[in-house]
Amino acid sequence: MKLGDIGEFGLIGRIAGKVAGGNGVLIGIGDDAAATEPTPGTVLLATSDMLVEGVHFDLSFTDPFRLGRKSLAVNLSDIAAMGGMPRHLLLSLAIPPGLPVEFLDRFTEGMLALADEFGVTLVGGDTCRSPAGLVISVTLHGEQTPDLVVRRNGARPGDQIFVTGTVGDAALGLELLRQGRRDGWAVERHLDPPPRVRAGLALAGAGLPTAMIDVSDGVAADLGHILELSGVGARIDAGSLPLSPYFREHAPRVCADPALLALTGGEDYELLFSVPAGREAEAASILTGIGVPVTSIGAITTGGPLTVTAADGREIAVSRGGFNHFASDP
Amino acid sequence: MKLGDIGEFGLIGRIAGKVAGGNGVLIGIGDDAAATEPTPGTVLLATSDMLVEGVHFDLSFTDPFRLGRKSLAVNLSDIAAMGGMPRHLLLSLAIPPGLPVEFLDRFTEGMLALADEFGVTLVGGDTCRSPAGLVISVTLHGEQTPDLVVRRNGARPGDQIFVTGTVGDAALGLELLRQGRRDGWAVERHLDPPPRVRAGLALAGAGLPTAMIDVSDGVAADLGHILELSGVGARIDAGSLPLSPYFREHAPRVCADPALLALTGGEDYELLFSVPAGREAEAASILTGIGVPVTSIGAITTGGPLTVTAADGREIAVSRGGFNHFASDP
Repeated sequence: MKLGDIGEFGLIGRIAGKVAGGNGVLIGIGDDAAATEPTPGTVLLATSDMLVEGVHFDLSFTDPFRLGRKSLAVNLSDIAAMGGMPRHLLLSLAIPPGLPVEFLDRFTEGMLALADEFGVTLVGGDTCRSPAGLVISVTLHGEQTPDLVVRRNGARPGDQIFVTGTVGDAALGLELLRQGRRDGWAVERHLDPPPRVRAGLALAGAGLPTAMIDVSDGVAADLGHILELSGVGARIDAGSLPLSPYFREHAPRVCADPALLALTGGEDYELLFSVPAGREAEAASILTGIGVPVTSIGAITTGGPLTVTAADGREIAVSRGGFNHFASDP
Repeated sequence: MKLGDIGEFGLIGRIAGKVAGGNGVLIGIGDDAAATEPTPGTVLLATSDMLVEGVHFDLSFTDPFRLGRKSLAVNLSDIAAMGGMPRHLLLSLAIPPGLPVEFLDRFTEGMLALADEFGVTLVGGDTCRSPAGLVISVTLHGEQTPDLVVRRNGARPGDQIFVTGTVGDAALGLELLRQGRRDGWAVERHLDPPPRVRAGLALAGAGLPTAMIDVSDGVAADLGHILELSGVGARIDAGSLPLSPYFREHAPRVCADPALLALTGGEDYELLFSVPAGREAEAASILTGIGVPVTSIGAITTGGPLTVTAADGREIAVSRGGFNHFASDP
């Protein structure tokens, strides 16, 4: 079935029919704007991410269900990095002519399945035609009491630096996708990253992180943001970066420097955070208690921006700039 | 200057440097998410609109400054139609390689100039590369106490129907742009529509409208939305539609049926609303008091969906469907 057959309002109706009520939604899809009830005493957290076909995703690598999940996951990850509770989302789509309605059905099913997992309700958005590829824009709203919101700028010398889960998998997965693989742990991590919402909430609830960010541009670049905004440096040990067994097995076969891939590979959507000295065990205990692995990778310092020490004691040179989205401009 | 020279963070820094503080913003541009303080007792109103090059705008018709204004104006209009006070916005851009930084400077200057007029602060968003044209996605947050929020579904038989300003101008302007004109009242109305925020707030504050919508798809289509959601019909008089002197002079030269253009032409971003019988003078007085012209165009009925009477008493057949964004699908 083609979109032209059902029109914009047909498409919106198809999406709205899948959305449950409740969750503080006074007015959902179908009016000029959505209306939602804030939880008294909280501040509104809001984040937007745009995913563009040919830039952020390749329809020969992924399927619509997982694309829908990932489009929300990257936003959930941002709310998680603030220590917030996600609540409502707006979805805007620019849709190329000829994209089957069934694709969009599976896309919204994927997104709404992940939304359900985290108690998030779709309340609005926009749909229109795209002359070129599919463009997805998601705005996600979350909440937290102001004293528990975690920023990027609070890291202090002596703080210990932690990262949840494992890093480098998503970058390895993208490389494997480019080489033709379509399955396996790393590919799955790239196509359907698990947002660390519960970890972010648990850490914020305990008032533990002095600074937190999600790993979207890579450990080195994202830690760099914390350092810059906090006005501090850091020393991390490349040998301590948490690597999955899959990464340890496959990364050496597809790239010359696996340690560098783990340090600079993006899109893992793990949480990277700093904790005051003396509270490391508390952080580890909280996350272990909810089944989230966590690893200490270094410490905040007064000097430097960032020093990375390799297993053999040498220092690794790492650009702090991260991925330049516009570097391929002519 | 090219975007590749300054990178994503350079661009974000350029935009952030133009944004003032205050307005309940705890965390603005530069963290994982924005954090804003809701006004106690209000609900959050949220709307998103996506503008796609080649679909919603043509860079040979407009300039970046007015494009920036319009990208926000269409969202302000949605908040106005809820009777809300706009407060914070998120801006996401997918930017084609080679678009000059100066274009984006002017674009954000236009958007922020309009934001300032309405006390709105830019708090976040996203920027990325676009393989094809420019894509703009704006999410706007507003507020209102729940009892004063105006929906589309409250129109009742006997209510009088009003529209602010004049209609048909923007559609005429688009036609003139296609014919090569680049100035004049109608072209200006198409490129830089004035959002009716103050009118929406004044009407909502007085508890007057039983239903309200902004005229984005045309009077007939947008009134159709109110009728459908309210479960009522309407009778309007085509001869009473408010037309600008410019429209009266130029429309007959560029289209065969000016009355139909006024009835179905989109993008005027005027407010269309219904008021209980007996309170018409109050509505007129409130809007006249803030300098907003308003015209009664008909009444809500029990029957029909929509009956339009021409000046000569004949009924005009009008499709209620409005513009089908996907109708050109192959």
